[in-house]
Amino acid sequence: MTRDITGFSNPLVKATRALRDKKSRRANGLFLAEGLRILTEARDAGTLPRAIWYNGADSPHPLTLEIAREVEATGGNVLTTSSEILAKLSGKDNPQAVLGVYAERWTDLAEIDRTTAPLWIVVQALRDPGNLGTILRIGDAVGAGGLILIDDCTDPFSVEAVRASMGALFTQVIAQARWGEFIAWLRAGPGQLIGTCLNTALDYQEPRYAAPAFLLIGNEAQGLPAAYESECDLRVKMPMMGRADSLNAAVACGVMAYELLNQRRKSTTLC
Amino acid sequence: MTRDITGFSNPLVKATRALRDKKSRRANGLFLAEGLRILTEARDAGTLPRAIWYNGADSPHPLTLEIAREVEATGGNVLTTSSEILAKLSGKDNPQAVLGVYAERWTDLAEIDRTTAPLWIVVQALRDPGNLGTILRIGDAVGAGGLILIDDCTDPFSVEAVRASMGALFTQVIAQARWGEFIAWLRAGPGQLIGTCLNTALDYQEPRYAAPAFLLIGNEAQGLPAAYESECDLRVKMPMMGRADSLNAAVACGVMAYELLNQRRKSTTLC
Repeated sequence: MTRDITGFSNPLVKATRALRDKKSRRANGLFLAEGLRILTEARDAGTLPRAIWYNGADSPHPLTLEIAREVEATGGNVLTTSSEILAKLSGKDNPQAVLGVYAERWTDLAEIDRTTAPLWIVVQALRDPGNLGTILRIGDAVGAGGLILIDDCTDPFSVEAVRASMGALFTQVIAQARWGEFIAWLRAGPGQLIGTCLNTALDYQEPRYAAPAFLLIGNEAQGLPAAYESECDLRVKMPMMGRADSLNAAVACGVMAYELLNQRRKSTTLC
Repeated sequence: MTRDITGFSNPLVKATRALRDKKSRRANGLFLAEGLRILTEARDAGTLPRAIWYNGADSPHPLTLEIAREVEATGGNVLTTSSEILAKLSGKDNPQAVLGVYAERWTDLAEIDRTTAPLWIVVQALRDPGNLGTILRIGDAVGAGGLILIDDCTDPFSVEAVRASMGALFTQVIAQARWGEFIAWLRAGPGQLIGTCLNTALDYQEPRYAAPAFLLIGNEAQGLPAAYESECDLRVKMPMMGRADSLNAAVACGVMAYELLNQRRKSTTLC
């Protein structure tokens, strides 16, 4: 159904605005994604929003109208509005011209078929939404199957994480688990758990990694707890030539993930 | 000189607080760094703050007192204060217990000896302070000489960039130049300019890179301007296995920088 929303006090404005808070996202199972680029990525990956908001006055982009027609055809809400209301929804002075409301995409660990991808990324107590979104984007780039969140991580469905993922949120399976659950599931099937840490002499380019690989990235400030490190099948480190002893978590993930991809590229004729 | 600062309206509070704005940083040639970890990294890299602020009530960390003594010995200001004033200075409810005021560390391009390092990182119109700080941290990790900022980049001396650099700001030479100046300087000596871009068939692992390498990273949204790409000696791309066509700028920089480091490691017996 298409509606023009003109009032700031419209309940749909309030309900959509509320999705900027985690509590409301969890209660409704919904989240926000802003900008035509991310909405197009989501559509191309097979996901339409439940509702789409766009600026009805500013002649909308043809792709916006195309997605809006598909949303309507699938029974979703098409909501045209003003740039002032879009600014309120997005909390920014210069809002994106289009905004989608999506169903949260949690997958149960038990439903993951680990053999569908050579790599799965596992993050532990990751706190920065930019890092989390960037890691989803890395997962998409290297052909990972998805991201598993351990312990208390930042919300992958926050506006900041969704933005940093650049749409990769819609191509990656997302699961969460406590450490014990994860290890029980991991050990019930094939898979090599690889941790990056400081207390090891093993250079990250030395091992021949095996699929499915589970790449474990720890908290930005603390790294991995010692007990989690001990559980890893391989503990590796990247060379550090300067004063610092570590890289940003997303950069470390990217360097490791490309090493694994490069090893796969060299071991097959397929790229 | 050691002073206890108790009033919010003290001119030193105002002047320090003002350094959160770029205009004030540029006018005074000063910037802020927060947290004992970064102040210690700076000191270990040979740089002391002009002034150090710390919470005088909360028994200070021995390292804080050590740095404070060195600041005093070099004629700087040691300022003890309350957590409320530190909160005002840092703009955060839970401020770090220590804060340093440093002289900005700009180096003229003409003063850089490019032969002192195998790698220099060059960023063009980079807008995100987190990315800029993260790239400084990568530079430190791979033994780069420094960072050259081209066009209108985010300020490397903003609180956010300093924080993301985790102290690498103090180990890396920092210069800025317009593109034309940079190219004139680059071509007056040895050096290979390497751009990462989409419009190339050359895989980033194919070339044998030569030192000094200049790794050029473009704007987060637009990538490199076509004319800048054309100037590169090598245009390479990273494999992208998913839907996305690019990585986060800092992650791309990290993957490239480690490829260059790995090639150097393999071509020498030194690590």
